[in-house]
Amino acid sequence: MSKFVTFGEIMLRLAPMGYERFVQSKEFSVVYGGGEANVAVSLSNYGKDAYFVSKVPKHEIGQCAVNELRKYGVNTDYIARGGERLGIYFCEKGASQRPSKVIYDRAHSSISEASSEDFNWDEVFKDAQWFHFTGITPALSDNCAEITLEAVKKAKEKGVMVSCDLNYRKKLWSSEKAGKVMGEIVKYCDVIIANEEDAEKVFGIKADATDIESGKLSEEGYRKVAKELFDRFGLKYAAITLRESYSASDNGWSAMIYDGKEFIRSRKYDIRIVDRVGGGDSFAGGLIYGLSSGMGSKDALEFAVAASCLKHSIEGDFNLVSKEEVETLMKGDASGRVQR
Amino acid sequence: MSKFVTFGEIMLRLAPMGYERFVQSKEFSVVYGGGEANVAVSLSNYGKDAYFVSKVPKHEIGQCAVNELRKYGVNTDYIARGGERLGIYFCEKGASQRPSKVIYDRAHSSISEASSEDFNWDEVFKDAQWFHFTGITPALSDNCAEITLEAVKKAKEKGVMVSCDLNYRKKLWSSEKAGKVMGEIVKYCDVIIANEEDAEKVFGIKADATDIESGKLSEEGYRKVAKELFDRFGLKYAAITLRESYSASDNGWSAMIYDGKEFIRSRKYDIRIVDRVGGGDSFAGGLIYGLSSGMGSKDALEFAVAASCLKHSIEGDFNLVSKEEVETLMKGDASGRVQR
Amino acid sequence: MSKFVTFGEIMLRLAPMGYERFVQSKEFSVVYGGGEANVAVSLSNYGKDAYFVSKVPKHEIGQCAVNELRKYGVNTDYIARGGERLGIYFCEKGASQRPSKVIYDRAHSSISEASSEDFNWDEVFKDAQWFHFTGITPALSDNCAEITLEAVKKAKEKGVMVSCDLNYRKKLWSSEKAGKVMGEIVKYCDVIIANEEDAEKVFGIKADATDIESGKLSEEGYRKVAKELFDRFGLKYAAITLRESYSASDNGWSAMIYDGKEFIRSRKYDIRIVDRVGGGDSFAGGLIYGLSSGMGSKDALEFAVAASCLKHSIEGDFNLVSKEEVETLMKGDASGRVQR
Amino acid sequence: MSKFVTFGEIMLRLAPMGYERFVQSKEFSVVYGGGEANVAVSLSNYGKDAYFVSKVPKHEIGQCAVNELRKYGVNTDYIARGGERLGIYFCEKGASQRPSKVIYDRAHSSISEASSEDFNWDEVFKDAQWFHFTGITPALSDNCAEITLEAVKKAKEKGVMVSCDLNYRKKLWSSEKAGKVMGEIVKYCDVIIANEEDAEKVFGIKADATDIESGKLSEEGYRKVAKELFDRFGLKYAAITLRESYSASDNGWSAMIYDGKEFIRSRKYDIRIVDRVGGGDSFAGGLIYGLSSGMGSKDALEFAVAASCLKHSIEGDFNLVSKEEVETLMKGDASGRVQR
Amino acid sequence: MSKFVTFGEIMLRLAPMGYERFVQSKEFSVVYGGGEANVAVSLSNYGKDAYFVSKVPKHEIGQCAVNELRKYGVNTDYIARGGERLGIYFCEKGASQRPSKVIYDRAHSSISEASSEDFNWDEVFKDAQWFHFTGITPALSDNCAEITLEAVKKAKEKGVMVSCDLNYRKKLWSSEKAGKVMGEIVKYCDVIIANEEDAEKVFGIKADATDIESGKLSEEGYRKVAKELFDRFGLKYAAITLRESYSASDNGWSAMIYDGKEFIRSRKYDIRIVDRVGGGDSFAGGLIYGLSSGMGSKDALEFAVAASCLKHSIEGDFNLVSKEEVETLMKGDASGRVQR
Amino acid sequence: MSKFVTFGEIMLRLAPMGYERFVQSKEFSVVYGGGEANVAVSLSNYGKDAYFVSKVPKHEIGQCAVNELRKYGVNTDYIARGGERLGIYFCEKGASQRPSKVIYDRAHSSISEASSEDFNWDEVFKDAQWFHFTGITPALSDNCAEITLEAVKKAKEKGVMVSCDLNYRKKLWSSEKAGKVMGEIVKYCDVIIANEEDAEKVFGIKADATDIESGKLSEEGYRKVAKELFDRFGLKYAAITLRESYSASDNGWSAMIYDGKEFIRSRKYDIRIVDRVGGGDSFAGGLIYGLSSGMGSKDALEFAVAASCLKHSIEGDFNLVSKEEVETLMKGDASGRVQR
Repeated sequence: MSKFVTFGEIMLRLAPMGYERFVQSKEFSVVYGGGEANVAVSLSNYGKDAYFVSKVPKHEIGQCAVNELRKYGVNTDYIARGGERLGIYFCEKGASQRPSKVIYDRAHSSISEASSEDFNWDEVFKDAQWFHFTGITPALSDNCAEITLEAVKKAKEKGVMVSCDLNYRKKLWSSEKAGKVMGEIVKYCDVIIANEEDAEKVFGIKADATDIESGKLSEEGYRKVAKELFDRFGLKYAAITLRESYSASDNGWSAMIYDGKEFIRSRKYDIRIVDRVGGGDSFAGGLIYGLSSGMGSKDALEFAVAASCLKHSIEGDFNLVSKEEVETLMKGDASGRVQR
Repeated sequence: MSKFVTFGEIMLRLAPMGYERFVQSKEFSVVYGGGEANVAVSLSNYGKDAYFVSKVPKHEIGQCAVNELRKYGVNTDYIARGGERLGIYFCEKGASQRPSKVIYDRAHSSISEASSEDFNWDEVFKDAQWFHFTGITPALSDNCAEITLEAVKKAKEKGVMVSCDLNYRKKLWSSEKAGKVMGEIVKYCDVIIANEEDAEKVFGIKADATDIESGKLSEEGYRKVAKELFDRFGLKYAAITLRESYSASDNGWSAMIYDGKEFIRSRKYDIRIVDRVGGGDSFAGGLIYGLSSGMGSKDALEFAVAASCLKHSIEGDFNLVSKEEVETLMKGDASGRVQR
Repeated sequence: MSKFVTFGEIMLRLAPMGYERFVQSKEFSVVYGGGEANVAVSLSNYGKDAYFVSKVPKHEIGQCAVNELRKYGVNTDYIARGGERLGIYFCEKGASQRPSKVIYDRAHSSISEASSEDFNWDEVFKDAQWFHFTGITPALSDNCAEITLEAVKKAKEKGVMVSCDLNYRKKLWSSEKAGKVMGEIVKYCDVIIANEEDAEKVFGIKADATDIESGKLSEEGYRKVAKELFDRFGLKYAAITLRESYSASDNGWSAMIYDGKEFIRSRKYDIRIVDRVGGGDSFAGGLIYGLSSGMGSKDALEFAVAASCLKHSIEGDFNLVSKEEVETLMKGDASGRVQR
Repeated sequence: MSKFVTFGEIMLRLAPMGYERFVQSKEFSVVYGGGEANVAVSLSNYGKDAYFVSKVPKHEIGQCAVNELRKYGVNTDYIARGGERLGIYFCEKGASQRPSKVIYDRAHSSISEASSEDFNWDEVFKDAQWFHFTGITPALSDNCAEITLEAVKKAKEKGVMVSCDLNYRKKLWSSEKAGKVMGEIVKYCDVIIANEEDAEKVFGIKADATDIESGKLSEEGYRKVAKELFDRFGLKYAAITLRESYSASDNGWSAMIYDGKEFIRSRKYDIRIVDRVGGGDSFAGGLIYGLSSGMGSKDALEFAVAASCLKHSIEGDFNLVSKEEVETLMKGDASGRVQR
Repeated sequence: MSKFVTFGEIMLRLAPMGYERFVQSKEFSVVYGGGEANVAVSLSNYGKDAYFVSKVPKHEIGQCAVNELRKYGVNTDYIARGGERLGIYFCEKGASQRPSKVIYDRAHSSISEASSEDFNWDEVFKDAQWFHFTGITPALSDNCAEITLEAVKKAKEKGVMVSCDLNYRKKLWSSEKAGKVMGEIVKYCDVIIANEEDAEKVFGIKADATDIESGKLSEEGYRKVAKELFDRFGLKYAAITLRESYSASDNGWSAMIYDGKEFIRSRKYDIRIVDRVGGGDSFAGGLIYGLSSGMGSKDALEFAVAASCLKHSIEGDFNLVSKEEVETLMKGDASGRVQR
Repeated sequence: MSKFVTFGEIMLRLAPMGYERFVQSKEFSVVYGGGEANVAVSLSNYGKDAYFVSKVPKHEIGQCAVNELRKYGVNTDYIARGGERLGIYFCEKGASQRPSKVIYDRAHSSISEASSEDFNWDEVFKDAQWFHFTGITPALSDNCAEITLEAVKKAKEKGVMVSCDLNYRKKLWSSEKAGKVMGEIVKYCDVIIANEEDAEKVFGIKADATDIESGKLSEEGYRKVAKELFDRFGLKYAAITLRESYSASDNGWSAMIYDGKEFIRSRKYDIRIVDRVGGGDSFAGGLIYGLSSGMGSKDALEFAVAASCLKHSIEGDFNLVSKEEVETLMKGDASGRVQR
């Protein structure tokens, strides 16, 4: 099998039980995840040979993160050990009009303080087919930005397909810095995934919509965003996810893709949310699977949207669904009838 | 009091907590239930003298099932002890577009390997008013089919009212075998309950609807199904439950009955699902209660539908509601206001 | 800071886990709360200097209630110790068409058997700005009615603003007695809060609406109720909360206020309910905060409704939200987007 | 089968999880039990036809107590319904040098306010073989004392064997009152069970031991206590349980019996405590079983001590062990080897 | 790295929480394990390249078992998929004088009905260093006995070291059959591990001890057992574990080994038990590690005993300790001081 | 009341449930604590007016720590807000021969990066009677060392009694640095508390015992340590705690004090451990209470040892016992009998 490599941070997620607020909580559920780790798990679930590259501290909590990845079949051989700590995020689940709340405690993590010596990209990309990362990784530190650049260059050099989910995080860097750093890195990318805000925040590419409430205009606007990303960076695919937040409990979810030939808009799902963290990552995982498995643009997009629709019904960061489950939904069965 | 007897399998249900998937689960909730046991508990809750007849292994897990029935007032004197194991089913709760998933591990259960000697139907049906079973029981094994036939014959002989919920299970037998076996047994029945698929799968009686989306046509189709069941088997009542699966989280729920005089369609409920397993059984329990308590066809139907509507809000197989609670809903109060 | 004083009962709430029924439950969640305690916690959360006055038994369970209040910054210096027991209520959470169920076990509580000597109102109201209680407190016992009357008189005498949430409880007293006792007490009030039933049950002031389903008429009717309360008791503000119970899972929620000049109707929220107990109290807490912080009638009303909208998404009696969170919703962001 | 009847209060036990203190607890485990109910469950577990007579409120919490008894096969037909509340006790588990703590909230319970009309002793004792109660029942109220007296008289009249566990509770009555009331009731008893304090507290019969540390003397003292009880009340058996509290985690446990012929001291067990509440009741249950099943005094005593030894390893009030498990220990296998 | 291969059944363990009895339990903890799987996890924890060979059903519960092994780094490439079910065992934890109770529900498991075609031993043993199995595997079925025989023959042929833990299970086969089947298989073994009963039950080799209470004699007896095993089967090592069950809460634990030159008795540990299931397997895992890592007989024995001592403090079947943790204890630090 | 002030770090403790290892854990219990915070809670429990001085981040997790202190009555007015994060420690509970394991993740905490401007010691020590800190606080950072020095100087200046628990942490600083920094600070102390290692690690004062196993000699050695601390720093009291770690489950616990007149050795307790973290802090809390409440050296010591004995039976960092509970044990009742 050929490798599907992702590179980034894996964090410990601590969350109150059910709908408790932080201040009520005497127990936190323990989940490990992060943008690129989540994509790796998705790819492993669909049968791909997924590798996650990162750095975690040498102690037991670092090992817990590794073990969670191993459990889902992700290869962890290229995870470096060392450094100070595993990044943490506290996540309180919202409901109805009360939003979910995320508190990051990720500074000084092992990956953010990793150095080029921790990774041997030549070895990593041997027999690799795909490399994926998100905009969070270069945002972690200058070190990480530099390592990411090295990685995409090496991937390009070896003919590995490269995808990036822009994933702008305002707590990690400014739009200015993001634009500058990402502008350099994205040159080596074949696929860009963005949500309704990322392109504007990172590259200043704004959806040209006079009225954000009007779905029609909005779609037109996002077409332009996709096309501009596509053209500016010489991509093979530009994809945009479209989340409509009716409330913390209910969302609309769809996406579009531009492959240089046509703009394709996916089916839209109305979702009762169990856990929406990792929703975007599950889209990326589905899209990479689809595009790398010989599906056309439309099928890959529908696979990705169906996959990420299902993610919203699953606790934790990882999208624990099989290819067959995604295909069933993709083919139209959203009835949720008991499968005996 | 006169006895209400049900006969079938009681199983151990193992389910991940909340919306966890099997692979995430470190704890399974422990519930005991099964089609006929569930009906017995409903009848006991409404004040009837319910008896559950079955066979369970002699060990503690078998006793747990018995104790759970005793807790809700079901008489367990006719449950035979012995055999190899208690049937198990693993049940993962779905949400939104992700369906619930049931994995059966019921082969070789004590009841499926029971023999005629385990049950003294003469004694069981002494002072009995009603006998109920589902199509699952004869599907368990040839033994069970034979015992069920003995039971319905004896019940008929003693003037006991006999009802059957067709409950077709494709994992247990083929349509062909089901049709053959059930065709023989159902001759002794007074009441048949079926869902939208059962009549077709078991007896090849298909709802004649050109467009399954059109409620009107569909109702017409199901009228024909009810009438054909009624006529073919010389029934007193034929009832059909109608589930509309919008998603794993939301269902529409209603039913119809044909008593030889008129076709009655019940009120329809839109339900937020807590646990839908046992929904059909709670309908049967409500219908038997209604018909045996002097209600007319319409009231019995509305009682049954209201009862099973409430079941969907209750965890576990059993429908733990009182007669008064069903009546309140049946009379129209679906507001869910706090009862202080 | 000036004191915001509330006076009433704090109870132990025992509730089955999730949607379990009482009879299924092997564990009860433990929450402490009560109408006036809930208001005190709201006020403390918004930065006010909240005091809760009550009486609890001297043992550990009494101390638990005190500690829970202290945790949220409520001053407990005026809580008397002694008496027999802490009031308890058992609360089973409903879902869909199944209503929540509350069983009270509050008779003989320390506060219901308290005497005037337990409270030094002169000291309590020193430097106080506001005094709030609900109709539950005088309903607890003749003692409590008398103490409440002493308190409102003393408050009035000291120029403290007095508010009362009518909160009629039919299990505690009859409409007749309520009308008589409350009629005397309410004379000393500046603000009355009532829900859609209270004014009728306590003072016989009925919403004049020919069709309860028609929102328009209903609003007209409630305007008259507000005006009559306002006029009869010489109030500064009369506020009415309007709950539409679609089911135990979904409610509509809004309110209106009359300040002698105009009738203001708030925005209406459609809510997925996590826990609706304490919803009315959170409205009172928000309204008192708004009115005492220089907001106009409209803003105070919208703050109160937004605050209580959020309460429905929070487990337990207390409304654990900050002023900033209420303001965000009040200003229109009900999207529930993750806050990172 | 002939009936084994017990009469008394069944309460709701609320306990923090594990070794948490009350003030730390957000969840209470829910257990139902009480001296006489515990004995009824023991007898049912050993195969006897156990009846529990009491009064519980009509609401769901009352029904929970009834269902818990039914679960373990105890007949609940003679439990009256009505009254105000179910008695509650809060129970914090101790460890090492920290004692367990019990807070009673049992005043005004349904049983304590029951009247003679609630019970038809003629019917209850029809076909009865044994009647058991504890000193707690008459201590609950004058009503209860009177009803207990009626019961023992009726039992005696019908030739039913009567046993009483003295079980002195200083929070319920004084030694003076206990002595007076119990002195009257105990006249109708055949068997008295007491622990190391009861005889002194209720009847002023003190173990004559100069040095409580010296096992030998102490045994001599308790022999005298047993003999005096035996003689004063014309008993068939007087039994005394002997607990040595090394700490909250470890106890020594043994007992003695006097049958008019000889003093028998049982084997002594050193116990790691899981839950010691109900330990005395499990002794009574074992003793009644032994004496009523044709065992001699010695075997009955050893059965009772082994049974109650096992109780200390079981959570909750009830002694959930089988006759076979008790016999295995009684015969000497205390190795705790895994039973496969 | 060279492979360490184990072959056998992996089961689902279902256990009540804490010290609950089955009948009290509403939740079962979910653990996966089995004699040989447990050894594989131990070896992986110590840094060896462990492979577990088995067969599990194709459904999610089968996958759960595989994922649990992957989590701990065990290679699962040779686990066949198919068949009917995963074996289950119910396990109730004992305390004090109450023994733990295991109920097996393992008949008809996928592995027990596996066939020779499911395993390619040539491939499995390529680059293998060690092969381990227990007497449970051939006891599962005639198929399994045959496959085990094929495996040991192939292992021997390839120069792989072979170890067997006799592990007699009376519920699976008789002593007669065990002796016959195992006699054939053990011929190909280099190492045999037995507990104090196995050698007698399987091969009729009895510890010659007049007084089982006398440690001295007993040791002498077990020396003879070890020597006889060693001589009869031409072993390299014969090891015997020695458990002293003081109670279900406390055990003594030690072992001995005979390597043809000397009899070595290990240090003895007095253990407070958290979970003793898997204790023997953790000894085997430690011994294999020690013997394969260049330790002498004595060190390997002490490593194995220390490893299995620690297992008793760990929940679940697997011995989740590192090599360093075992070495710390082995070197004498049993103080349990907090490691900061 | 006069203030009892403590100054230091409060951390979030994350711990697996029960005896689970980190790698098994899906839920962490959430506890807040730290050396000086623990002492403040002890003092508040005994009725003193306790103040905790620290710095926590402005977000919800910081507020959780504050609320937990408020719950137990500790004044939090002087806790500064700001900085990056709350220190965390992961804590896995050991059992039997397996030690507890603590992983610190405390670098970059708000308190460690606090500055002198964050604290107004003049205001803090107004009306103060006692100031307590541990050797952990100055070890956190050079900032913290400087602030601690300012605090002790100011305390001394204002006539406040100053106590210090040496509490050496090798992960935070070297013996060399500790000696230098603490040597300066301790000059302003009146009371020093140390365990069996601290004096040596910080000040090179070694217990002069030829044989650590011999209790007698050891006591002699610790007398010299106490005297040397007393003399070198001009103390009023030097106290030493003496822990004997038999295993992770069982410890011996006692202490000694030297007041310039006599060496007093306390009673020794053998403890079954529930949670030993915070054991030393509970000793300090008890000693400060005793010495500040007019007890003599001996009584204060026995109070402190009894208090900390009880702490070992309580989950979490805080010693949640009342003065009465400590006194009961101190007076000799270690029987753990149920308190009804």
